[in-house]
Formats: sequence, structure tokens, C-alpha cells
Amino acid sequence: MGFGTVGSGVAKILLEDADSIAIRTGIRLELAAVVDKDTESPRKIVLPKGLLTGDLNRILKDDTIQVVVESVGGTTAAKEIQIQMLQAGKHIVTANKALLAEHGDQLYAAAIASDRSIGFEASCCGGIPIILALRTGLAANRINALYGILNGTCNYILSKMTQSGADFRTVLSEAQTKGYAEADPSLDINGTDTAHKLAILAAIAFGGQIRMQDIYIEGIEQIASSDIQYAREMGYVIKLLAIGERTADGSVSLRVHPSLIHENTPLASVSGPFNAVSVTGHAVGKTMYYGRGAGMMATASAVVADLIEIGLGSCQRVFRAMPMTTGQQEQIRIKKIQDIECRFYIRLMARDEPGVVARYGRILANHKISIRGAIQHEGRGPDKTVPVVITTHPTLELNMFNALDELARLKVIGTRPACIRIVDIPEDSE
Amino acid sequence: MGFGTVGSGVAKILLEDADSIAIRTGIRLELAAVVDKDTESPRKIVLPKGLLTGDLNRILKDDTIQVVVESVGGTTAAKEIQIQMLQAGKHIVTANKALLAEHGDQLYAAAIASDRSIGFEASCCGGIPIILALRTGLAANRINALYGILNGTCNYILSKMTQSGADFRTVLSEAQTKGYAEADPSLDINGTDTAHKLAILAAIAFGGQIRMQDIYIEGIEQIASSDIQYAREMGYVIKLLAIGERTADGSVSLRVHPSLIHENTPLASVSGPFNAVSVTGHAVGKTMYYGRGAGMMATASAVVADLIEIGLGSCQRVFRAMPMTTGQQEQIRIKKIQDIECRFYIRLMARDEPGVVARYGRILANHKISIRGAIQHEGRGPDKTVPVVITTHPTLELNMFNALDELARLKVIGTRPACIRIVDIPEDSE
Repeated sequence: MGFGTVGSGVAKILLEDADSIAIRTGIRLELAAVVDKDTESPRKIVLPKGLLTGDLNRILKDDTIQVVVESVGGTTAAKEIQIQMLQAGKHIVTANKALLAEHGDQLYAAAIASDRSIGFEASCCGGIPIILALRTGLAANRINALYGILNGTCNYILSKMTQSGADFRTVLSEAQTKGYAEADPSLDINGTDTAHKLAILAAIAFGGQIRMQDIYIEGIEQIASSDIQYAREMGYVIKLLAIGERTADGSVSLRVHPSLIHENTPLASVSGPFNAVSVTGHAVGKTMYYGRGAGMMATASAVVADLIEIGLGSCQRVFRAMPMTTGQQEQIRIKKIQDIECRFYIRLMARDEPGVVARYGRILANHKISIRGAIQHEGRGPDKTVPVVITTHPTLELNMFNALDELARLKVIGTRPACIRIVDIPEDSE
Repeated sequence: MGFGTVGSGVAKILLEDADSIAIRTGIRLELAAVVDKDTESPRKIVLPKGLLTGDLNRILKDDTIQVVVESVGGTTAAKEIQIQMLQAGKHIVTANKALLAEHGDQLYAAAIASDRSIGFEASCCGGIPIILALRTGLAANRINALYGILNGTCNYILSKMTQSGADFRTVLSEAQTKGYAEADPSLDINGTDTAHKLAILAAIAFGGQIRMQDIYIEGIEQIASSDIQYAREMGYVIKLLAIGERTADGSVSLRVHPSLIHENTPLASVSGPFNAVSVTGHAVGKTMYYGRGAGMMATASAVVADLIEIGLGSCQRVFRAMPMTTGQQEQIRIKKIQDIECRFYIRLMARDEPGVVARYGRILANHKISIRGAIQHEGRGPDKTVPVVITTHPTLELNMFNALDELARLKVIGTRPACIRIVDIPEDSE
């Protein structure tokens, strides 16, 4: 279902590699039909005659078709189609993260009711087998933390801004020209797409239901190229991170926001359209998974892996035994963003006159915010202001929020300072 | 079977986490018995009374015991035990890479004959689910290349040599004190252990039988700290790499040797006892997997993952369908080391006198070796010699071998130059 980019990639593998897949895995995959509203436009691959149709019934009424790859996209028609197909006794494989993050519970229930399963490896991080790692490879572990670069568009934009020094808008339109960002890039750059993927990964990692409203979301639209440069001077790289952390009190913090991470952290070197996820388990320690987060063939690789797992019967067995389908989900308590302790990077544009340091210093101190590092270059800013860059020790989000309000009201500053969280990804000590 | 480090870790997880594993996976694992010759010495964990025994029959004669974790080690007693257990109808889970690399074909045949399976995720890279990724996550792909840091001891030693500038012997004995190297470290430092793991991974990746003699092996014993420093000056890090590459003519190159890799390559930042594997598939592109390569709990994490997969039935289904058990293995043609084209780092100690450059330059040119970079610091070497460090363009191994012979015979040089391969891990272009 759906003959766009992902559908074309899947068809290509099924048409070209069915024999070698059968030798490797014992499973013979056969492409029975491709359904798409548009049966006319030329695509990147040519299907054998008669395979492409606009008629959904071609699949629904053919009992020999056992699995449907839903690559229609969106959350309305796609949802109906998935439920219809499940009820008709077909397994589903999908890359549709928005649908699963928002209506996963309904779809999983429909699948269980029909004794069928949904494979969704391709919904997160393209070709990286991250769901497989979480649900099977690390199944012996209580997962304590998960840090991910989950959106290739944002990572491409931030990488390019870092390399070229160009500003957000310039790099975004360049990314659109090159096909790394969509015509309407809002779901990518505002962090929603990353949050969809975090919802899916965190549900498996922490064994409980995650709603979108459980995730705090900030996008990358406000990142200035100057912040990227100052961060670099201090040894940090700015990434849009998805974070899932089990905190000391047992609650779980789920958030998506731009983050300064130390340049020596493995995630810092993940650049361009690549994705990576760092997962810490109580037994295994820290592990990391890296690869292409999107694209026709990388996503198709994950879809076909699910098709093979359905052929082997493994997908079904795992799906039926997961807390999200057995109802044995943990009741996850969500740690609110304002209750988190975090380090911060702030950049304030201060007037270049006596007493300024004392004034912002006092405000920070009043809010119990302790300065860890600072840069003030001589005479750089516009309008007789100088940029003052400060990094802090861990401080309560709420305190920082209040301090920023107060700083914005200071006459010698005048605008709300830029503020980006610093994420110290814990080292797995030797 | 075997109550050493790995056995203790597995027992710990089974005793402490059986309930949470049952919720996560639907599989309840029960530790029925622990067999070890030594039933007296204190271990890191305390077993419930009556579980530890010296009697193998306790397992063999108990039909309720369905899976045996062989963590005895070695290739003689362990092999007999595995075959005995398989014939008694028990599945095997093992971390024994030496046994699988050397006698895997016999064990796989014994398992198939008894309609049982062998789970061996823990045999390579400790807790990293790399075998799962190769056999399941990337099952849609023809694997074209695999580059791995597979031995934590070697990586720890090379990392420490890089950080401290100390020489091999000093760092090795420090590693032994800290428990990162065994009392007899030869199998680790001479590359054999890495080759065992490469044999196992390459058999899955390339779908054919790999014999140990198919793998060219060099260890890290000859790496001088000066070479590590010169490599760094030129932007490289030295790692012991396991390499499996499908070459242009369809043959496969399998080798383990110290390698200069560019400092920006993701594998270059894998330090200390960590492992990582970069895998390139025809659809997915480049992927990477990172984590602890050894240790009690990381290895136990992989063993227990296999136990769960056996509980789910997935391990059996995959095992029975793999080319190594169906007999549908590809006939792999091995590319011999002397036929490979490679770049090289060489360090020669040349006498500091006129005409030296011309002489070694002519020898390299005669063997069609083209110089890409060179460093000769002023007056550094002992005995009136200066170290000359050269990196080359790609050149045939055989040519380099002959050139080194000839250089060693030059009066102004006198000893065989140090020579380390440079491995340019292909980028996955944006």
C-alpha cells in the first residue's frame, strides 16, 4: 500500500533480492500487488505488468496475501487501511511513526484481536535495527537511559550550520533543494517527528504506555549560528536530542530539545543525515547504534527485515508477548520538565558598560544558579552590546526559567537570553 | 555449565530479573542447576542452596532442563559437553568463540541432527547484539563490508599507549594488574581471538563457511609507541581491526591486523575495553554497533537474550534456516593478503647523511610505490639515525613486502622498517 519512496524501495528489494533472501533466511518473499491511488506517474523502479493497481480490494480479497506494507503515510487514511487489513487477517509492516505514536494502542489492539502482528522497525531510525535491539538484543536489561539523534533533517541542518557558519533559514532552504528537508519541514524542525520516534522507542525501552503529551518538545528553529560557534569554542556540539531517562526517584523524563553535548561524546560525531541511538541497560552498560535515519533503501531494509521476521513467525511471537499488547505495561510516572535538574548554556546580549556583570551575576545567584564557564570576547556585538556566553552547573529548570525572565527585564540586557540545555551523557566507566 | 565470570553473570540475571523479564518478553527463565568442577570456592554471587553441583548428570538426566549455557571455555571438554547436551535434547547457549570458530560446523551439524539450536550472540562483542543485527536486522542486505574492533584487551592496550605514550610491555602488565588482560594474554594480543570472532561474524555476513586459515592474522606485539605518536601527527589512530570485505572481483578479503584509521572515522573514537563493528549492506548503507566487548554482565546480557529467543522459538527458526545449517552456503573465494591493494605507513630509521632520501625513494619507486605523505623531524633518532615516516598511496601488498626486504638491505637503513597498513574505511556519502 503506497508506491512512494519507501514503497519503491521495498518493491526493489523484493523484485531483485528474493532469491538471495530465501537462501539467507529460508523465507521466500513474493510481491503480489502494489496499490496506489496514482497508477500513472513514472517511479524510480519499474514493476512487472499487472502488479500496480488503484484497487484496495485486490489485496483485501486475496487470501494468499499475508502481509501488507503500509507506506501511505499520514494518520487518517493509513489508520483505516491498517485496521481494515488486520481485520482481513493480514499482518502489517509500517514505517508510519506518526500513526503509531498517536494511535498505536488502537492499532495494537486491532492486531491482537485479529491474531495478527504489526512490524514497525522502519518507523524509527531508518535502517538501524534499533527496535530489534531494544525488544530482543537487550531483552535481559532494564533500560535506564536512551539518547538519540532521530531526525536526519535536523541533524543535516545543524551539521551544515556548524560546518559553514550559515544561519538556520539559509541552510534549511539549501536542505530543501537537496531533498533533505520537505517542502513543509515543520514536523521535522519543530521536534514533533523526533518525539514520535521517542514515544515508540521509550514505550519499548521502559515497558509502559507513552502519550505524546508526556514528551516535552522544543525544535531547532531558534538555534543561532553564533550559538553553534560559541558552543564549539567551549568544546560542545549542538544536536537535537531525544532523551529518555529513568531518574533517581523512579520516574521517567522524556524530552526532545536542542542540546549541547561534549565534542568527545560519540553522538557528537554523528553528522549529516545519519541517526544514532545510545542505550544504557543495567547489565549491558552503554551501547550505541548508528546508521542512515531515512532514505528509500535504508528504510526498505528495515521493512524487509520485518517481512522476514513475519515469515519466520518471530515478529508475531514477540509482538504478542510485549507489555504493550499483553496489558502488563508499567505505570510510568513522567518527570515534568520544570522539575529536572540540568546544566544550561545561556547567551545574553549585554550593554558594554560598567556594572553589567554584577547585575546579571546577582540575578543568577539569587536563583541559585552557579556559573561554570563564561566567554566574553572583546567588542563583538552590534548596537553597543556584547555577547556574554555562560555555562552553568546543574540547576533546576524552573529556577533557570525564572532567572531568564528577570534577565530579560534588566535594562542593560533588554531581550530574553538565548538558552540551550547542556546534556552530559553519562560515561560508562571502564 | 561453568560457574566462572560469565556463568556468575548469567546466574545473577536469572535470579534477580526473572520476573521483569517475564513481563517484558512473556518468557519465564528458571535457573535449574549450576554445574562446575569447583563447588567450593566463593564466587561473586551466592546461589540458592542445592543449585550448585559437580555432577553433569544433574543436567543430562533432567528432562525439564531445556537449555544449557556452556561457559566452560576451551575447545576440548566444552565441545564434548555441547555435543552430549545437544544429543540429550537440550539447546545450547554459549560465548565460546574459539570453539565455534574452530569446530562450528560439527556443532551446528550435531544441533540440527538433534533438532536443537545453538545461540551464540555472546561469542562476539559481549553485550552488543551484533549477530542479531547481521542475521535478522540486516537480513534484507547483501553485506559488502565489515570492520570491527573485536578485542577489548588489545583496544585497551592501544588506547592506553596512545594516551600515555608508554610502550607495549609496560601497558600490557598494567592491563594484567587491572584485569583487562589475562595472565597468558597471547590469544588476545596475537590477534587469534579477534580472528575467531571475525570467522563467526563473516560466516553470517557473507553466508559461507570460513575456516581459520582463511584469515590473515597479525597481532599488536610489534606496535611501538613512537608509531602511535607519528600516526597521530598525521591524523591517524592505530587499532587492531578485523576486516571482511567483498572485493571488486567477488572474492572476500578476511584479515586481522593493526591498522591506521583516520581520526575522524567513528571507529577511531572507540577506546578502552569497548568494541564496535561497522557493517555496510547494499540497501542499508553503513551502520555501526558499539558497546562493551566483554565483562561479566555485558556477556551475560547477550547470553540471556539468547535464552529468551530460545523461549520464544525464534532462535531455533533462524538457526535452522541459516546457510550454515541448511548447507546452502556460498562458496567463498578468499582474496589472498599478497593480492590486496592497501595503503601503508612505514617508519625507517635512516642514517643522517646525504643521499639517503634518493636511495630509499628509488627503491620505493622501483616497486611502484608512490609516497603520499612524509615526516622527518630534525635530529630525533638514536645512533645517528633519524626516523623517517612515510605514508603511501594504494599499492600491492606483494610490492610493499619486496620493497621492505630491499630497504632492510640498504646500508643507510640496516633494519627492516616498521610497516603498518592504513585502512580507509569507505564513507557512506550523503
